[in-house]
Amino acid sequence: MPTRSQGLAAAHTRYPEPVITGRKSFGSDNHAGAHPEVVEAVAAANAGDAGPYGADDWTSRATSELCAAFGAAGAFFVFNGTAANVLGISLLLRPFDSVICAESSHLNVDECGATERNLGNKVVPLATPDGKLTPELIRSRLTGRGDEHRSQPRVVEIAQVTEVGTCYSLSDLRLLAQFCRAEGLYLYMDGARLANAAANLGCELADLAAHADVLSFGGTKNGAVAAEAVIVMRDDLLADVPFLRKQQMQLGSKMRFMAAQFSALLEDKLWLRAAQHANSMASRLAAGVQDAPGVAIRYPVQSNAVFASLSPSRIAALQRDWTFYVWDEKESVVRWMTAFDTTEDDVDQFVMAIRASASP
Amino acid sequence: MPTRSQGLAAAHTRYPEPVITGRKSFGSDNHAGAHPEVVEAVAAANAGDAGPYGADDWTSRATSELCAAFGAAGAFFVFNGTAANVLGISLLLRPFDSVICAESSHLNVDECGATERNLGNKVVPLATPDGKLTPELIRSRLTGRGDEHRSQPRVVEIAQVTEVGTCYSLSDLRLLAQFCRAEGLYLYMDGARLANAAANLGCELADLAAHADVLSFGGTKNGAVAAEAVIVMRDDLLADVPFLRKQQMQLGSKMRFMAAQFSALLEDKLWLRAAQHANSMASRLAAGVQDAPGVAIRYPVQSNAVFASLSPSRIAALQRDWTFYVWDEKESVVRWMTAFDTTEDDVDQFVMAIRASASP
Amino acid sequence: MPTRSQGLAAAHTRYPEPVITGRKSFGSDNHAGAHPEVVEAVAAANAGDAGPYGADDWTSRATSELCAAFGAAGAFFVFNGTAANVLGISLLLRPFDSVICAESSHLNVDECGATERNLGNKVVPLATPDGKLTPELIRSRLTGRGDEHRSQPRVVEIAQVTEVGTCYSLSDLRLLAQFCRAEGLYLYMDGARLANAAANLGCELADLAAHADVLSFGGTKNGAVAAEAVIVMRDDLLADVPFLRKQQMQLGSKMRFMAAQFSALLEDKLWLRAAQHANSMASRLAAGVQDAPGVAIRYPVQSNAVFASLSPSRIAALQRDWTFYVWDEKESVVRWMTAFDTTEDDVDQFVMAIRASASP
Amino acid sequence: MPTRSQGLAAAHTRYPEPVITGRKSFGSDNHAGAHPEVVEAVAAANAGDAGPYGADDWTSRATSELCAAFGAAGAFFVFNGTAANVLGISLLLRPFDSVICAESSHLNVDECGATERNLGNKVVPLATPDGKLTPELIRSRLTGRGDEHRSQPRVVEIAQVTEVGTCYSLSDLRLLAQFCRAEGLYLYMDGARLANAAANLGCELADLAAHADVLSFGGTKNGAVAAEAVIVMRDDLLADVPFLRKQQMQLGSKMRFMAAQFSALLEDKLWLRAAQHANSMASRLAAGVQDAPGVAIRYPVQSNAVFASLSPSRIAALQRDWTFYVWDEKESVVRWMTAFDTTEDDVDQFVMAIRASASP
Repeated sequence: MPTRSQGLAAAHTRYPEPVITGRKSFGSDNHAGAHPEVVEAVAAANAGDAGPYGADDWTSRATSELCAAFGAAGAFFVFNGTAANVLGISLLLRPFDSVICAESSHLNVDECGATERNLGNKVVPLATPDGKLTPELIRSRLTGRGDEHRSQPRVVEIAQVTEVGTCYSLSDLRLLAQFCRAEGLYLYMDGARLANAAANLGCELADLAAHADVLSFGGTKNGAVAAEAVIVMRDDLLADVPFLRKQQMQLGSKMRFMAAQFSALLEDKLWLRAAQHANSMASRLAAGVQDAPGVAIRYPVQSNAVFASLSPSRIAALQRDWTFYVWDEKESVVRWMTAFDTTEDDVDQFVMAIRASASP
Repeated sequence: MPTRSQGLAAAHTRYPEPVITGRKSFGSDNHAGAHPEVVEAVAAANAGDAGPYGADDWTSRATSELCAAFGAAGAFFVFNGTAANVLGISLLLRPFDSVICAESSHLNVDECGATERNLGNKVVPLATPDGKLTPELIRSRLTGRGDEHRSQPRVVEIAQVTEVGTCYSLSDLRLLAQFCRAEGLYLYMDGARLANAAANLGCELADLAAHADVLSFGGTKNGAVAAEAVIVMRDDLLADVPFLRKQQMQLGSKMRFMAAQFSALLEDKLWLRAAQHANSMASRLAAGVQDAPGVAIRYPVQSNAVFASLSPSRIAALQRDWTFYVWDEKESVVRWMTAFDTTEDDVDQFVMAIRASASP
Repeated sequence: MPTRSQGLAAAHTRYPEPVITGRKSFGSDNHAGAHPEVVEAVAAANAGDAGPYGADDWTSRATSELCAAFGAAGAFFVFNGTAANVLGISLLLRPFDSVICAESSHLNVDECGATERNLGNKVVPLATPDGKLTPELIRSRLTGRGDEHRSQPRVVEIAQVTEVGTCYSLSDLRLLAQFCRAEGLYLYMDGARLANAAANLGCELADLAAHADVLSFGGTKNGAVAAEAVIVMRDDLLADVPFLRKQQMQLGSKMRFMAAQFSALLEDKLWLRAAQHANSMASRLAAGVQDAPGVAIRYPVQSNAVFASLSPSRIAALQRDWTFYVWDEKESVVRWMTAFDTTEDDVDQFVMAIRASASP
Repeated sequence: MPTRSQGLAAAHTRYPEPVITGRKSFGSDNHAGAHPEVVEAVAAANAGDAGPYGADDWTSRATSELCAAFGAAGAFFVFNGTAANVLGISLLLRPFDSVICAESSHLNVDECGATERNLGNKVVPLATPDGKLTPELIRSRLTGRGDEHRSQPRVVEIAQVTEVGTCYSLSDLRLLAQFCRAEGLYLYMDGARLANAAANLGCELADLAAHADVLSFGGTKNGAVAAEAVIVMRDDLLADVPFLRKQQMQLGSKMRFMAAQFSALLEDKLWLRAAQHANSMASRLAAGVQDAPGVAIRYPVQSNAVFASLSPSRIAALQRDWTFYVWDEKESVVRWMTAFDTTEDDVDQFVMAIRASASP
């Protein structure tokens, strides 16, 4: 079947990833390569010797730039998004604390239990209509505080944007942050697609970060080769980070090559331009199919993803030529995702194919 | 003092790394950049969409190449050497097992307790004269087997080459492997500098790997940007690796960029040429100073490192112009390390400086 | 307020436990002391020297008796119910596996995250109407099997009886066990109150155990001083238990005193007589209040607990003289629990008080 | 062979424990039963209902008594010595910290890696001549502080008395405590046999505790059924203990039965009388054999253990009638241990047997 990968070394992927067809993939923003400016920056950083483990000029510069952009106390590079989440929340937890998150969150669903394994803390999932937590939802899990028999709620984990492509508004964030402060909770923000949120809201990174204690800033899904950053907003959390990052197997020895990727993304706000483009391609796609018979958009399109339901037979027909994931087999929901390098023509062809798939 | 880094963002490195002077660093092979062919391969892999998490052609190819070179059952990319060690030994341990290793090993000393933290297993360090374990040394820690009060010895961890630059001979490895098999122990080989060992011994990678259950193969210290591989020699150990790698935060989404680095290193045995060169530069350095008054070579030079003792005042004088680490302050031992890009001229100038430092 | 404990050393209990009033407590079966026959058995075991850590005759005898009663491969004593659950499921999990359980389960709610902390495995809670899992509920969480991004469902954890006092019927258990086998899942049964379930169902312990891979058998809530047993039904799971128990801090040095408690409970089926009595006291209580105006029984009374809703003001009034817990403050639900030493007179007085509390 | 246990259920003890012969065991103080006064106290605590999890009068009283005896901020009961050590040091460690201890310590050797498994921290063992750490020994492991690559030394763990029966003098403790304070280290004292140390030194428990941040106080080896206490000397460490104890599976529900044991031990200083007696029996034994040909006492006899070397054939001959452990097979060293219930006659008969074993 064309939805299944073929000929891959069994050892690498257990779960069939979609085969990339000749057409632009709408499978994920990580199907895309890296932005050419990022690759050039990596090559340019290959200039003789440099201090290891971040003791180099590229790291100093990118760190300073990130701290400035976020109004942050510190910024630390790690290799992937799961690691960013684990390191980030590890700064906030005692052994007997729990993390409250959306049931659909990446942390809960897509990290193979990394939080529980690496930190030993309990994850408390909450069902949500749109991937977004609210004070009311969180409050329902705040019983048993002070009771030694209960894991103690401590960190509220939200993703901006969420797994279903929705964004917290600045007002949503303000209310959540106020609630957390009032309740003695910490707020961690999974920002694997934070750029897409900032592009959607038309705000600065610092406007988003101001509400969090710690957050991540994703590079990989927005044009980097492989680079994520943990952004620490409070001075009092900085001292342990280097040790925790090393122990969590995230300290890069030739760190300049990670830092250079971020400097490229920050140069003339490439991160924003890339995210704005990806978002606008998703909007174009949504606009193109919203009145298509038999296609129903499932969530507000507030980033670079369109979730839609259509019939299983149309999904199967479309997947013969186009790459994308079935998000919920039972509900027949698919995810179509755009990237920094998705073109208007890619979208328009895909829209045509989707609409055509309706014909008898 | 010139041996201390200055002006670095405090958040990045807690421990002062040496400042890189204008001259070629003899501090570490990770002070070097990446080999140009590796950087070109990364750029070349930036060619449109690809399946994520290893479901791409670059990963398939590099995996096959590695399996062929090692005679291995599987090969899995991870981000750094600490992660390779943790993932590798995690395949071999029950919760109550311990890892026997040299007291001076990277696993014991330089990984911030990553084995204990991430796996929860006990590490049992053994003092060695030259960084190398022997059956006799290991046997001294095999008491209490079957006793529920005792952590059970299960994995013998050796590094090839060791932290002090020495190599196990093929005969050493054969004896160790026989001993482990006879004693129901598994052998894990930290191959962060395995290329240097193969270059020194004039053997194939498969000759080294044949004695291990699992090993790592380091790319980063030998010219990669950031790429290590866990090499699994036994089919029965493969099934869990993808899950463990993901959970251990080592699954790269755009894995083609990791794979491409290894394919570049394997192309015409670049890995061997790079290691041979680095080794020969260390030999040239050792030859140049071995009869220098007041300089004593401390360990056999069997890779790309020279350990030598000389007076503290000469060390201080040399460090004003040259970058290298004091290995053992009490014993006044330094480590001089060469890389794939160290030139004969670099070595000759350094040798002159070392010899000159003796003058009153 | 009389519902709050007063004057306790702050260090001991963070959460106020109810003050025991002069009247028999309906708070919990662990408010009761130990059965006199158990205390006598402890005293009788104090007879000179004995081998430590279970190498004694009391342990041999009680172990054999438990294995016979359960048709088990092995039986292992631990100190409390949380430990029994952790040790029991630890026999069944790989690092990347998850435990499916009822959201209301003791394991999920009342063990301060011990599973996540001590084992590092993910706990997947499922909302249930009555504390009982069904194949349909479990099936809803079996997506993503084989996908390295997902924690892999492996153990189904049920409690017999559940936290809300309900029992799985033998047919329920048979269906669950069949489902688990068909789906490659293991079944673990938290038997902190297994005696009450056997008493309710009128079956043998072996009839319950036959459906599980591993289970626990609680002594403490049924008249022991402090003794729980992990019952292992499969030979292939036995070898690691002694090491895991020791490592999990559950190996008693003077184990005869734990074993003697179980032998006392097994003598003439004291465990059954005690549980039958407690159950019948709960039934008497339920019968006494079921037609009381303003009192609604919330769950089928199938063990030694009665859950009922009544108005907050009546709860407050009752708690001035009687000890019991508010189970759900929002829903105004209380738990009334009986023990081996609750008398008919205790129940009748309490029933009268409950009915009287309705008067204006 | 008579040194091996026979006929025990395989599941219980993996390692053969010595068979208890008809004669008084010199194998371990945990071969003894419980002191009659302790058993009586347990029976006396079986008086109707009581608050669970420590919310009872017995716990309040015993906690107050312990705090008074130690000058402590808090006292917390746990089930065994391994648990006391794990809970105690868990109050003092960040994730990347290490515990420095004697290589021969119970924590390092006899707890099946419980520290690494349950806390994830590195254990750094130091070879010692007599089981005792010194500032000089500890100082040798204080390199790499502040270096993110290194596990950070944080807790110094000592046992009072040590595994080889030796005691730190009050002056030893003062120097160690001063050293730790000056170096930013915490001092944890494993007091499984603290009573024997106090008896040997003729000092108060508070005199020993004053030098530690946290310590344990063992009841089990000194006449309890099963009861150990974690003694916390600093107010700032108290808040997390209840949660950590619960999570570490050490919260007893009918805690009164643990507390009553300690109150019995504290009544008229039974703990001291029992320890003084055991110590004096060891001294009598040592005095009886010290001039015996072929018997060499190995360590100063400062508690209730005598370590001696004698020929393997004499050991074998003695073990036909007497129960004791071979401590070091290679060096032919045995451990003879006395208990609260060892009599002068037991010792005298054993001395005669030892001396007689020399005869041809």
